[in-house]
Parts: sequence; structure tokens; C-alpha cells
Amino acid sequence: MTTAPDLGFTTLRWADGKLLLLDQTKLPQIQEEMEFETIPPLVDAIQRLCVRGAPALGCAGAYGMVLGVLDAEGREQWSAALKESASLLSAARPTAVNLVVGVQHILNFGEGLLAAAAAASDKFDVDLATAKLLDQAIAFHEADTASCLAIAENCLPLLHDGARVLTHCNAGALATGGLGTALAPLHLGASRGMNFQVYADETRPLRQGARLTAWEMARNGVPVTVLPDSAAASLLASGGVDFVIVGSDRIAANGDVCNKIGTFPLAVMAARFNVPVLVLAPATTIDPFCPSGAEIPIEQRAAEEIFGEDGAREGVEVYNPAFDVTPSSLVQHIITDHGVFQAHGKGCEAWQSYVAGLGNDRA
Amino acid sequence: MTTAPDLGFTTLRWADGKLLLLDQTKLPQIQEEMEFETIPPLVDAIQRLCVRGAPALGCAGAYGMVLGVLDAEGREQWSAALKESASLLSAARPTAVNLVVGVQHILNFGEGLLAAAAAASDKFDVDLATAKLLDQAIAFHEADTASCLAIAENCLPLLHDGARVLTHCNAGALATGGLGTALAPLHLGASRGMNFQVYADETRPLRQGARLTAWEMARNGVPVTVLPDSAAASLLASGGVDFVIVGSDRIAANGDVCNKIGTFPLAVMAARFNVPVLVLAPATTIDPFCPSGAEIPIEQRAAEEIFGEDGAREGVEVYNPAFDVTPSSLVQHIITDHGVFQAHGKGCEAWQSYVAGLGNDRA
Repeated sequence: MTTAPDLGFTTLRWADGKLLLLDQTKLPQIQEEMEFETIPPLVDAIQRLCVRGAPALGCAGAYGMVLGVLDAEGREQWSAALKESASLLSAARPTAVNLVVGVQHILNFGEGLLAAAAAASDKFDVDLATAKLLDQAIAFHEADTASCLAIAENCLPLLHDGARVLTHCNAGALATGGLGTALAPLHLGASRGMNFQVYADETRPLRQGARLTAWEMARNGVPVTVLPDSAAASLLASGGVDFVIVGSDRIAANGDVCNKIGTFPLAVMAARFNVPVLVLAPATTIDPFCPSGAEIPIEQRAAEEIFGEDGAREGVEVYNPAFDVTPSSLVQHIITDHGVFQAHGKGCEAWQSYVAGLGNDRA
Repeated sequence: MTTAPDLGFTTLRWADGKLLLLDQTKLPQIQEEMEFETIPPLVDAIQRLCVRGAPALGCAGAYGMVLGVLDAEGREQWSAALKESASLLSAARPTAVNLVVGVQHILNFGEGLLAAAAAASDKFDVDLATAKLLDQAIAFHEADTASCLAIAENCLPLLHDGARVLTHCNAGALATGGLGTALAPLHLGASRGMNFQVYADETRPLRQGARLTAWEMARNGVPVTVLPDSAAASLLASGGVDFVIVGSDRIAANGDVCNKIGTFPLAVMAARFNVPVLVLAPATTIDPFCPSGAEIPIEQRAAEEIFGEDGAREGVEVYNPAFDVTPSSLVQHIITDHGVFQAHGKGCEAWQSYVAGLGNDRA
């Protein structure tokens, strides 16, 4: 199995009985880790977006559950701390599904330990249970790391040395417990001596491309250029882009891709200039029970994201959807940890049976 | 002839021997006029973008020439002040062609007065000459106002009551000596009781839409909604837009339109959803000697426009073109102060003879 390369930073890790998170609110100016030994400051850090990105939040939630039981003495305390931790962490960002998935995974495992001990009438060894809980959180994190690596390995053969890649938002190592999704093959290829030129859309309103993608590519020594979202069309028209590579927040059964606002017009412009669009995401992003993009609800975000610099604006409304939907027909390949798929036209049968299989697994 | 409606603000005006400019650096928070009695503070204000927009700069330059001779005593001083003023004002923003046009127009007129007096061996009446110079600057301003009104009148019959209009950047009253170009028919229609819903693209990197277009529409009581540039595609896809209306910095002989970066992808998305794109500009914007958009040089702007908030960024480059080119085929109508034209397909003969006529006029 491939080992993930060192990128010059680690989004999150467990060391010496503590959770360490790279403080993303200080990027790109300062690379600094925060240490957590208890849950309340971790909840605060999650709310302030010190850690963000769906898979990374899942890992932070899993490790957070371990923090919650570190000081528990005896079975009763341990059991109560486990439930209390799950409740505190899940409420930190109510809409972050992956956070809850990570928390719930460790909660279920911990309750399994309690139930097993009760069933066997064993004395409950708190230190042993906490150690097992930590092993499980580490395994959860490692599964995410492995998923990122598999996405990278599946995509890399499609790219060539010197490829010029345009991306949107940050679907990178900063958003996961591993190499990222969209940026994973670029990190992996770079570690193997391949050369890339990355173009990072600024990604208004929250500027994840300018703040995070640019930083993480530069930190790993990959040449990166930031552009206003509205300049991507000119760059594509100039012939300066070989691939558009993006992540996804949710992929419908028909291959429609929900991702950060701006992905859809980017895919339209890419099609106009015959530049392939690749969507990279873990299989967990695919929703086999969602027939098409039309069924995906799009969250509207606050005016402050646009007017923060100007303050409140009398008589001015805001239209600020967080995501848009790119039709499957504009996406050349959807690449997951399981392989390379095409969701439209000839060759879409493999995709259809893949999605059906995911549906059966989760039914 | 139509009179321009009161918008609740005036971009620039002459009163009591002074030039008054709305300080656009304080918008949208504060509506405040600056007064100028001499040239140096005006040059500073032009450089700080207190006044911006090609036609508005032309008017400011014309009035500035009058400020320059206000204190001159005698023919020699008046003549020297005229030349000195032209030199100072023209250098304020070297790339602003319209600024130079306004300055040069008044310089030529003033030199004509000097020559006529010399030829007639008349005593040169400084006060009379200054009054004539001011009349000429006012006429220059009024011509711009009239041009804006003519564009508005030519466009208005194409719009319906309740029309939902998406625009990009600020081609409004704040950019001209009148009602604006792209926004002129909306201001005029609103003054006649028509209802519009305006959508203003934020327009990164300098945010003219969020800062200026939103302010000027709200100030005139027209409902306005700001959106990130990358959300325009979703708005168009939702069926929420009847017209895309933009200005232009330069229109080639074949009808290709150079305008603020982001106009091209907006026009592509509009075409995808069958929303007509209207380009509104004075005839002076048309360059009959430029065959197509491919011949228009595109200025690259500084990284600070994107990274201002973050400071310098080691290892990160920037791609920041100021403009892009929209192919003529994506523009339904080009509307000038002379009429409504179509530059491509059937019906383009009128456009071609119009442009040929402009070329003959300027040859």
C-alpha cells in the first residue's frame, strides 16, 4: 500500500494524549497547531472553523470523543462522559453531517464495549476501554487517509507530467484527514516528482481557494496561481488549462454533482473549451437515494459573507447560495476511492451498477 | 427632449465657482461631496478613485481645466495656467483615455480663444475667456448627460415592467456625468414608474457591483440584490433573470465586446438559459479601427487587488486580467446613443454601416 507523502503540514493528529489541530483561521499567515485536552475548547475551535471540511470534521469528532473520556473514573463516569461528549460535539456544527458520523461511530463503539463488559459480567477496565476507543478513532482517521490515497491513485494515471489544473474552493488536505480529494493526486504526483501548475479560483465569498488551496499547494512546493472566479473563463479560453478538478459535497445517483457555488459555470466554460472536468470524492459523498441534482436542497448563506467588509447595507438584498449543481453531462469522470466512473453516455453502466451497489450496502 | 431624473445623488457638478465630486471612496457608508477650487487636490482625488468611470473622468478633467485658470491674471498667466493644468490633469491617471479626452477638449477650446484674440489683435479678456471655458466644460458634461439619456431611451422599449435585470460591475450614474450606460434605462424607467428587480454581480476583485451599483440603485429606490459572481449561473438557471445588461470599455468593429472581467462567462451562461445580453455604451466606446476582440490588449492588474486582505503571499502567483472579451455572437443587441444594433447574423448590415460611418467621422 502507498504511504501518504509529507506535505509540510498536518491538518490533525493525536500525540501524547492530546488532539492537535492546524489552526486554519491563522492561515495563510501563520502555521500553528492548537492542542486540545478537553472538549469545550475543541467545540469552540470547530465553531470558529479552525478545522473545516467534511472528512476532517469527522476525524476531529472521533478524536474529540476520546478526549471526553480521558479523565473518567469508573464505568458510570466513563459511560456518562461518552454520551455527554457525543452530545456536545454533535451540536458544535449542526449541519456538518460528517462531524456527526465520526462522533456516532465512536459512540457506538464505546457503547459496544460497555455492553460487552456488562454481558460478560466483567469488571469494566476504564483505561483499557479508553485505549480501545483511541485505537478506533485512529482507525477512523486512517480510513479517511486511505480513502484520500485511493482517490489519488485512481486519478493520477489520467494526469500527465506538466499538467495544468484549475480547481475551485478547497478540497485538499486541509479539508480531510489525508491528502484531500481534488488536490490528492496533485500532492501524490508531486511527491513522485511530477510537475503540475495549479490554478486556484479565489472562491468567493469565503475565499477558500485564495486562503487555503493556495497555501497548501505552495506549502508542498507545487506552483500555484490564484485567480478571481470570473477570470477562469479567460484562462480556459487562452488554452492554459488541461484539467478542471474539483471535489463534491454530494453526488446524485445520476451523476449530478453538488459542489461549492461556481463549480457549475466553471464546468460550462470548461466544456466550451474542451477541457475535461474531473470530480474527485470518496464513495460516501455519493447519495444513491437522491435521483438527481434537482432533489438536492441548496443552503442560502448570510449577507455578512458578502458585505462583511462594508457592514450592513440598507435596501440591498443578497443572493448567496452555498452550492450549485453541475449536470452529469458536463463531468467527464467521477473518481472515488473505488475507481474511475463515467455517469453519462456510453459507459455509464459501470456507474449505475456501482451506485446500485452502494444503495444496497446502505439499505 | 427628456430631462434626466433626480437619482438622489450627483456624481459631479459645478456650483459657486467650485467643482463638487461625490466621494466614491466613502460609498456605500457615507454620501459626501468634496469641493475643489484648485487642481492639486483634484489630481489627488482622481488618483484615489474618489471619481472613477471613463465618462465621469472626462467631465472631471474638463471642469478641472476651468479650476486651473480661475486665478490667472492677464493673457500670459491664463495661457500658461491652461497648459500647466492640462499637463497635471492628464498625468493623474495615465491610462484613463477619457480623462485626457475631456482635458484636451477644453485645452483646444482655450487655445482657440487665445488664437482668435491674437488674430484679431483684441485685448484678451481673462474673465470672459474663463466664463467661455466654463460654458464649454458644462457643454461637455451636458453632452455626456445627453448621451446617457439617449442610451436609456433607446433601450427602454426593449424592457418590460417588472423586468429582472442582472448586471456586472458599475456602468451606472456613478461612472458618468449622467444616468450611466448599462444602468441608465433602469434609472429612467424607474423615474417613470416602471418596476425592476436588479441583480448586481459583486464583481471581484474590486467589488464595484457590491459597493457602487447596489448603492446607486438603492439610492434611487430600485430593488437590488447583490450576488457573488459565481452565483450568477445558478440565478440564470433558476429562471430568475429576464435580461443581462452590461456596459463596455471597448467594442470592436465586429461587435466583440471588451468589458470588466467576468462579462464573458456571464454571457455564456445567459446564452445557455436563453436570456438576452444587452451591451449599452456611448458610440465613443466603439473602435471602428479594431477589427475584433482578439486585437484588444488585456491589462493584467496587481496581486494586491486579490490578496489585499491577506498581505503578500510567498510562492503564490496571481492571474488577474482586468477585462475579458465577449464574442459578438453572444450579444443580442449593442445599444448606443444612436440606436439599437445587432452585430452578428441577419440584420448586422445596419451595424456594419454604422461602424463604417464612425470610422469615416474619425478618420
